[in-house]
Amino acid sequence: MPAKATASAPASIGNVIVGFDILGQSLDAARDTVTAVREDEPGVRLGEVSGLVSTLPPEAHRNTALAAAAAVLTASNSPFGARLSIDKGVPMSAGMGGSAASAVAAAVAVNALLDDPFTLEELFPFCLEGERVASDPPHWDNVMASLIGGLVLASRLDPIGVTSLPVPPGLTTILFHPAAQIETRMARAILMPEVPLKLVIEHSRRLAAFIAGCTTANLALIRDSFEDILIEPQRAHLLPVLPAVQAAAREAGALGCSFSGAGPSVFAWARNEDADAVEEAMRWAFLDAGLAARAYRAALDSPGARLEALAERVE
Amino acid sequence: MPAKATASAPASIGNVIVGFDILGQSLDAARDTVTAVREDEPGVRLGEVSGLVSTLPPEAHRNTALAAAAAVLTASNSPFGARLSIDKGVPMSAGMGGSAASAVAAAVAVNALLDDPFTLEELFPFCLEGERVASDPPHWDNVMASLIGGLVLASRLDPIGVTSLPVPPGLTTILFHPAAQIETRMARAILMPEVPLKLVIEHSRRLAAFIAGCTTANLALIRDSFEDILIEPQRAHLLPVLPAVQAAAREAGALGCSFSGAGPSVFAWARNEDADAVEEAMRWAFLDAGLAARAYRAALDSPGARLEALAERVE
Repeated sequence: MPAKATASAPASIGNVIVGFDILGQSLDAARDTVTAVREDEPGVRLGEVSGLVSTLPPEAHRNTALAAAAAVLTASNSPFGARLSIDKGVPMSAGMGGSAASAVAAAVAVNALLDDPFTLEELFPFCLEGERVASDPPHWDNVMASLIGGLVLASRLDPIGVTSLPVPPGLTTILFHPAAQIETRMARAILMPEVPLKLVIEHSRRLAAFIAGCTTANLALIRDSFEDILIEPQRAHLLPVLPAVQAAAREAGALGCSFSGAGPSVFAWARNEDADAVEEAMRWAFLDAGLAARAYRAALDSPGARLEALAERVE
Repeated sequence: MPAKATASAPASIGNVIVGFDILGQSLDAARDTVTAVREDEPGVRLGEVSGLVSTLPPEAHRNTALAAAAAVLTASNSPFGARLSIDKGVPMSAGMGGSAASAVAAAVAVNALLDDPFTLEELFPFCLEGERVASDPPHWDNVMASLIGGLVLASRLDPIGVTSLPVPPGLTTILFHPAAQIETRMARAILMPEVPLKLVIEHSRRLAAFIAGCTTANLALIRDSFEDILIEPQRAHLLPVLPAVQAAAREAGALGCSFSGAGPSVFAWARNEDADAVEEAMRWAFLDAGLAARAYRAALDSPGARLEALAERVE
């Protein structure tokens, strides 16, 4: 029976363009890594914290990793507990799925300690319990993307259904995390509770075209439909540089560009051969606005969570 | 230069389930046939009317076929005119795209008389001009499905973009046209002008899953998402037997069942091997409600409009 397991999970993009609350994608340009060590005492405890942060809340109800791990142990009726060390590679409050990455990595790590582990898909509800600590209701789109990888659709609510969507080959995701703050809760609170039917239809047109474009590898269709007319207009003022970054990205050949999650990060899709030019163009648009921004870049078809190491005994 | 051309166009289903105003499919179980005869006098005139009706309005601004044909002739700066005979095979006011079928067949027929004819796709705006006579704004979904065939997405509004979607093989569409009246204009007028954001998200989930299910031939995904929670609940009372028909269809193995267009016709998708059982179940559900209903049935991947005959001279 393993005594120690290390797992990692990538950053992720929620609300992928037209997929508010339902479409997520992994972004394997930053990962959280969690090491779970089996302990006789039931329950979960926080071990070392490293990487982008040096402290995290030690209580399970305030820490997404601990909460997810606890949910896994509880569901499996585990007689033992675990201590979790967390190495944060995904920035927090960036709109990059940082809380989801910790929850997912923790669930995968602690799951590997079990006699009879769950499958990756079966871990989804436990990861959601972890994410719920950061936001309730939890962000499905980030959690499922970080867990499973690639472009993922929250296809059914009850019972939970998650569907991996094929994506065209040869595409790169470029994400910039600017030195700006957008509070997710606030970004959600400002949304109009009602949407004009005409807007619903126009949004539906783009969503249907976008999904068809992805699944049939039709780049022209993706380019035409890579536009969020439902949510983005209500949030664009939270990051005044957004239109300039979008225009720069499109001009440099991007298929499109929008907020990652509720922002402040902004991402674009581009053909691999255009990715350098798109990254440069976006960087300059941020700089022109006097905004420092860090770039992250990965293949669109990025992997999800994975077990990194497993040891029979703790050294 | 041809003196006479005959073309036909199939019935069609608008608002395919989750695709209100954006998804159409052809239904090659009934067709309108239009014969256009070249005449020296410019403009369009009504010839014989046959089939399901014996009279139709003779003025272009009240007749979808004449209006579409006139639009084609005008756009091509044709020095000649045409007389159109119309054989109606698609019932009117059935929610089966009857007006679109006439417009499409007429456009294709008169186009064949031209020196330099348009492509099928190029005829789309002229067909829309025809459909506009029946409803303004015109029903894109019916027009494009009848013209191009198969399952079609109105992927872009301006400039017009129409995309054929791949569908899983081995599926049958079963449609029942009941002896009931639903006026399209009224069916649209009763719709709430605003939609709660939560409902938009749940609808989007189904739309995305439905498109992915069709394009990746995932029948389970289609079955799960074949549900119109946006429009149908607002119109279901217009055909009280609808829930019974839907339940009967599902129970007999249908992937799902909903209004065709604004009704009163109701259609289902089923695997070919389940189609007989689904048709029987739907028929009995209508009969149990004391409602006569005629069945139409065709492969999901049904053809669109086609030229049937071309003659150098009029016999």
